[in-house]
Amino acid sequence: MKRVYNFSAGPATLPEEVLKEAADEMLDFQGTGMSVMEMSHRSKAFDKIIKDAEQDLRDLMGIPDNYKVLFLQGGAHLQFAMVPMNFMKNGVADYIVTGNWAKRAWKEASKFGKANCVASSEDRNFSYIPDCSDLPIDDDADYVYICQNNTIYGTQFHTLPNTKGKTLVADVSSCFLSEPVEVEKYGMLYGGVQKNIGPAGVVIAIIREDLITEDVYPNTPTMLQYKTHADKESLYNTPPAYGIYICGKVFKWLKKMGGLSAIKERNEKKASLLYDFLDGSSLFKGTAEKDSRSYMNVDFVTGDKELDAEFVKEAEAAGLAGLKGHRSVGGMRASIYNAMSVEGVEALVKFMKEFEKRHSK
Amino acid sequence: MKRVYNFSAGPATLPEEVLKEAADEMLDFQGTGMSVMEMSHRSKAFDKIIKDAEQDLRDLMGIPDNYKVLFLQGGAHLQFAMVPMNFMKNGVADYIVTGNWAKRAWKEASKFGKANCVASSEDRNFSYIPDCSDLPIDDDADYVYICQNNTIYGTQFHTLPNTKGKTLVADVSSCFLSEPVEVEKYGMLYGGVQKNIGPAGVVIAIIREDLITEDVYPNTPTMLQYKTHADKESLYNTPPAYGIYICGKVFKWLKKMGGLSAIKERNEKKASLLYDFLDGSSLFKGTAEKDSRSYMNVDFVTGDKELDAEFVKEAEAAGLAGLKGHRSVGGMRASIYNAMSVEGVEALVKFMKEFEKRHSK
Ligand SMILES: Cc1ncc(COP(=O)(O)O)c(C=O)c1O
Ligand SMILES: Cc1ncc(COP(=O)(O)O)c(C=O)c1O
Ligand SMILES: [Mg+2]
Ligand SMILES: [Mg+2]
Ligand SMILES: [Mg+2]
Ligand SMILES: [Mg+2]
Repeated sequence: MKRVYNFSAGPATLPEEVLKEAADEMLDFQGTGMSVMEMSHRSKAFDKIIKDAEQDLRDLMGIPDNYKVLFLQGGAHLQFAMVPMNFMKNGVADYIVTGNWAKRAWKEASKFGKANCVASSEDRNFSYIPDCSDLPIDDDADYVYICQNNTIYGTQFHTLPNTKGKTLVADVSSCFLSEPVEVEKYGMLYGGVQKNIGPAGVVIAIIREDLITEDVYPNTPTMLQYKTHADKESLYNTPPAYGIYICGKVFKWLKKMGGLSAIKERNEKKASLLYDFLDGSSLFKGTAEKDSRSYMNVDFVTGDKELDAEFVKEAEAAGLAGLKGHRSVGGMRASIYNAMSVEGVEALVKFMKEFEKRHSK
Repeated sequence: MKRVYNFSAGPATLPEEVLKEAADEMLDFQGTGMSVMEMSHRSKAFDKIIKDAEQDLRDLMGIPDNYKVLFLQGGAHLQFAMVPMNFMKNGVADYIVTGNWAKRAWKEASKFGKANCVASSEDRNFSYIPDCSDLPIDDDADYVYICQNNTIYGTQFHTLPNTKGKTLVADVSSCFLSEPVEVEKYGMLYGGVQKNIGPAGVVIAIIREDLITEDVYPNTPTMLQYKTHADKESLYNTPPAYGIYICGKVFKWLKKMGGLSAIKERNEKKASLLYDFLDGSSLFKGTAEKDSRSYMNVDFVTGDKELDAEFVKEAEAAGLAGLKGHRSVGGMRASIYNAMSVEGVEALVKFMKEFEKRHSK
């Protein structure tokens, strides 16, 4: 058994000890005589798994009591529709378009009402976060939507936008639990868990209770109404139980690591290792503008496509996997989520240094 | 490590060798240095996993080339909306209501058009399958819908309804791969995998290609259009990758077991063991009418609620888990899906005999 350093943008690396525990419990979860995969979602054992997961998440993030935590299916993409179908009470919402996923969410929302694009960074290939201190927020806007960390472009909101009193909704898929959050500042935050938390197939949505109503877009499917899931504590129908179980283990791992302040420190250290090297490199260059840089996804290029491809190939062979950038940016992307160790990033920087030496003219 | 005999209706028992393999591969899938949970869904390794899974399923069921196989999220419940949103081109559909899940599907469909209930067995608490040889099928019906095996009530269609030429759509969640199927007789068949195939969080839909069009209910979310997923071979967005991987292993296990004819034989043997005992028992009584009996879910009662509860409790203690019946029927339910062994059913019958002896007056 060898493990590589996995820089994939998602699904992504998970803590080794979580995987070990899951392997150990695969045939017999804590004396139940069955795998969590085989367990009724109405059983006592699973009830404890999902309740513990929720409580640990509440502890980690300091989620106020007037927020519901929902475990959902359908990926972040289904939220692109559920958010407007549930929240566009006036039929209006403002979108800040800082990347591919924000753009998709905006386009999807326009099916259900007036979805304004109030700011965009598409003019420079989404390489920065626009100034959001004084945006033309619509008086009738039911919410203002952001994608807080742009997985593809390696940019991140370091200050939340001024929503002028409107409800903030954020896709935090790729920065979930990477640092402490002030949940109160959001009406809703949600993310697919497959980057920072667990296996693909689970979405966690954290929603202020007063936003969860029956007043939804006409003929919204039952499964697409937050109220359906909130009323039944995520057990309206069979939940993605095994995924939730793994998420629960990651929450416990995070607690053991010291919680979100500690993980933030570690994430900043990892990001600095990479960005500091990039800023001093004669071969590699970061693609995101400096003050918009993401702590989770670090995009870089050599400026020569063939050399980029060579780098990805050699890195792969050296046990540094998943470094190919998204086609929208090209080059390389190192995703350094919570479960990536400092050693992993050090190994990457070391490899980049050697590669640079070999390829400097 | 001890394993119980798990008669849960779903999530449900899985083949032990599948779980063992999954445990072995948890930290390093076939030399990739990562878990399948950690693997990009765009990677070569995962591409092979999902393609192999689809091919093995096609082999097992003999799925014709003009049918798409989709791996979806949202549970069977999301299909209750997706089916009418995608297929009600004339705005009409006929539903045969033989249980709770068929009824829910019917109610949900009525949001999107005229959903007729053309037959029902609710008059006798869904304990039988009505005669469907000459139903008042609507001339404009876009499809006729059935739930082929009624998990809760332990009934099953042993003959498909006469749809008078209309497209048949079937929820096969709880009889998926339990016997050979003539896929050509259906326009679509689908099921949540969490009973006969894998962990909750994956739905498999098998749809005749000509039914997959852009002509859908107004403002259907992108994620709820079959075309979205069909055009991208289930990789429009991040799929429930780990679940699909387990399903793939179960398909390989089924092939090794001899395919669907062999598994049908085993399933009939298991069901006969139970039904034969029930028919001769002085204490226990099956609740489904004889010619409608399910091969997958066997419902029975003693006629005394306290005794039923006592039975479930003692069985649990004896390593026979998940026997409590659904509240709509009460009593007991033994779900004996593909992965339940003949020995498991024999152990249950043995226990029932002993219990009967102890409690006969
Ligand atoms: C920030 C962000 N939002 C949304 C998505 C789409 O997620 P999903 O594939 O679960 O629909 C992704 C990723 O892949 C993402 O990175
Ligand atoms: C036949 C059948 N259809 C639909 C469902 C609902 O499935 P899900 O919980 O995945 O929505 C179930 C089960 O639980 C079922 O047995
Ligand atoms: Mg907080
Ligand atoms: Mg992005
Ligand atoms: Mg066939
Ligand atoms: Mg039923």
